[in-house]
Formats: sequence, C-alpha cells, structure tokens
Amino acid sequence: MADVAEDRRPRAARARQVADVLRGEIVRGRFRGGRLPHEAALAREYGASRNTVREALGLLRDEGLVERCPGVGTTAGAGKYPHGLHRLLGLAETLHEHGEVTNEVRAMSLVEPPAAVRDRLGLGTGERVVYLERLRRLNGLPLSLDLTYLAREAGEPLFDEDLERNDIFVLLERVTGRPLGVAEVTLEAVNADPHTAAVLDVPRGAALLMVERLTHLSDGRPVDLEFIRFRGDRLTMRGHLRRHQDGREE
Amino acid sequence: MADVAEDRRPRAARARQVADVLRGEIVRGRFRGGRLPHEAALAREYGASRNTVREALGLLRDEGLVERCPGVGTTAGAGKYPHGLHRLLGLAETLHEHGEVTNEVRAMSLVEPPAAVRDRLGLGTGERVVYLERLRRLNGLPLSLDLTYLAREAGEPLFDEDLERNDIFVLLERVTGRPLGVAEVTLEAVNADPHTAAVLDVPRGAALLMVERLTHLSDGRPVDLEFIRFRGDRLTMRGHLRRHQDGREE
Repeated sequence: MADVAEDRRPRAARARQVADVLRGEIVRGRFRGGRLPHEAALAREYGASRNTVREALGLLRDEGLVERCPGVGTTAGAGKYPHGLHRLLGLAETLHEHGEVTNEVRAMSLVEPPAAVRDRLGLGTGERVVYLERLRRLNGLPLSLDLTYLAREAGEPLFDEDLERNDIFVLLERVTGRPLGVAEVTLEAVNADPHTAAVLDVPRGAALLMVERLTHLSDGRPVDLEFIRFRGDRLTMRGHLRRHQDGREE
Repeated sequence: MADVAEDRRPRAARARQVADVLRGEIVRGRFRGGRLPHEAALAREYGASRNTVREALGLLRDEGLVERCPGVGTTAGAGKYPHGLHRLLGLAETLHEHGEVTNEVRAMSLVEPPAAVRDRLGLGTGERVVYLERLRRLNGLPLSLDLTYLAREAGEPLFDEDLERNDIFVLLERVTGRPLGVAEVTLEAVNADPHTAAVLDVPRGAALLMVERLTHLSDGRPVDLEFIRFRGDRLTMRGHLRRHQDGREE
C-alpha cells in the first residue's frame, strides 16, 4: 500500500495535473473574469512548487482560459458556455441564459447532394436538398460554423424565414408542423484549418469541437444533416450519463 | 426562392464542405484502409472542381484521416473508434469489439487533494484521495491519458488490483460491491501541450477530446473524478439525443 510518495514525474506532468483541476474551475466560471489566487497560494493549495504552478498557468494561458500580466497576476476569462447534452437543443435554446445568438447566413441554395448525403437523408437519386452555411455568434462573438443539409420539403420553406434570429430546429418544427424526434450525434476534436480559423477568429490549428448530427422528425424521417464546428475555447458539451439504463439509483 | 445558385464562396469553403461529408464517411469506417475514388470521380460526385477536391483531401490528410501518394491515390485510415455516449461505460467496455485496451500506470499514490477536488468528491479538509495517472492504449497504440482522483475507501483497494487490464469502473463496482450510478460529464476540445503530445504520440497542438467526468456510486456518493484526454484522430463520442424526454416518437 503506497503512502504519499515522492513525486518523480517530470514537472510538465505535475503542471498538467494542477492545470486540469484549475481549468475545470475556470471552465465552470468559478473565477468569472476575476483574479486567480497568487502563485504562492496556489502552490500551497496544490502541494506543488511555484515553478510547477507557473507552468500550469502557462498551459491555461496557451488555451486562452487566463491572461497573465506581470505585476498584476492571473485573470480568468468568462469560462465556457455549456451546451446541454441531455436533450436535442438548438444553440439559442441551450444558451438562452447566456446571451443572444445571431446567425450570419454565408450560403444558402438548393443543391444536388453527393450520394453520402442523399443516403443519410434517405433520398433518391436526383433529389435536391437545401444547403445552408451559417456563422453563429453569441453576444456578437463567433461561436460556431455550421454546414447544414436539409431535406427539400423541410428546407425550402426556410428561404422565407428569419434565419438570422432563429434556430433551425425551431423553424423545422414550425414549417413541418411536427416535433423533431431523435438525432444521431458524433462528437470529435479537430484542428482548425486556416480558412475556418479565419472565419471563427481563432489561431490556425486551434482545437474545435466538431459535431455531426443527423436529426429526424418525430415520425422517423431524417431531415437535417449538420456538420458543426464549435470554438473549443468557448464551448463545452455537458450532460449526465447513467451506468444502467433502467437505473433509478438517484 | 433560390435555384441552384452559382457558388461564389472561396475555394477553401467549398473544400471544407466536400471534406466534411468525406470525413464523416471515413470516420465511420466506410473506406477502412482502402482506396478513395479518384479525384475526377470525387469531383463529379461532389459537383466540385478537381482543385477543390484536391484541397479537401489535403484537409483530411492534415487531420491524419487519409494518406496521399503521388501515382497511387488517396488511402483512408481505419476511421475512429466510437465511444458510446448512451451509457456510462469504461474504455475497454465500450471498445471491446475493436480490440484490447491496456493501461500503463504512470503514477499512483495517496495524496492530499486541492480543495476543488475535495469539494467535488464531497470530502472534508485533510481527507486524502488516491491519485492515478494512466496512459491507455488500444491494440498497443496510445488512445488516452487519464488523470483520476478516487475517494480513499474506493481507491485504496485498487492498489491490489490489476489496473493494466481492467477499467476503473469495473474495479470500483467490484471493490465497493455496489453499481455505479450517474456521472456528470463535460466534453471539450483542447490542443495538446508539448508533454501530453509526446505521451500520446501526436504532434504538438493536436486536437484532443477532453472529458471531465465525476462518477457517483448508485447511492449518490461521488467516488471518481477524472480528467481524460483522448486523441482526436482516434476517437469519437457517439450517441443519440431526443428532442422530448418523454418522447416515444420512434
């Protein structure tokens, strides 16, 4: 049985350990725009050397979570916005407490999709879809770039809707007169290519949370295939998972 | 109402659009190790120029999803492993169809945790926890780096268990004699710092899928706080979301 052992790991490993706990606090907004404790206090709290704490704060700065000013100290950013994973929600729906979502429509047209898109939307050869590209902002700052393919009967009415101010999900339910049902969701982490980085106003290679989502109407028809890139420094996905599906343990 | 409009977007935007559909196919393993169609065929299929297709394939190569050989063409990798989001699962449990998970224990000791960890695990001042650091491999290749804090009564028995071959979840259920209940999960995309990059064998700055997960026993006691970095090029999170919680639409 080990006791508190001497830590022989490299400083970088200890810095990562300190940074992870701190980053969790920052991401949840504990310091929201405020000052972090001084390095000496953090060193005591984390049982680490000041050099390790300094390196940990450097990691968080590199992620854009804190700013460091000589003589002033370390200031936390606002944290990250939590996108709910518990339910199928549009961006404005899930972030309504955090501010206003606006959408810049960068492309919208009726197109002949490649077979891979047709297959996922359950369409036949030659059937067209509505393709939509939007830069989405929260309180004026870029949050995500969304590429969307919509089955024609659901997508075509959207040419006449206010896409700048509304989630597609809400509009789809309105124009089809039917609730959405289930979505298949795939989450990945990808690096921003140069063009995407410019559009989202992040450095090249910045980590993005990428979501592929195929949404069905309540009757099972797939209508909406999306490829969404969220800024990794601004957004988290948050939810609960259960060990046992029938679980009523809590 | 728009008809098929002339596409005035920059080539980079069109390349991203092509790449996203292709990447979805590759990630799901459609081409598993095989050759992609020729550029000319992809250009026809995607209604894009060959230059656009070439740029799209370049984006996928930069993500490590395909390899391009002059004269040979484009070969897809094996895709990404799907980590189930439908249920709380350990890595070996969720990937059992894909191969063998082995765990390299890089650190394990009884430590005094910082207040932020104590608070989340519901512990009092001075209470110690078991800290565990593991590099996890699938079929011998690095997949994730996991930093784990375990409440002492659940964690201490693990010093005597086979951590190389077992998920913590399975061991926790064995040693506590009680099923796990619910976990609070936060997903982020972060760039790999240099040390993490070296450990996971990825380039510096590579996009990682980061998971913070606080797992409770079935009686509600929090026992396991984890900070997990998955290689973004090897793993996706996959699940279903429902629009309405009571939904029996499908």
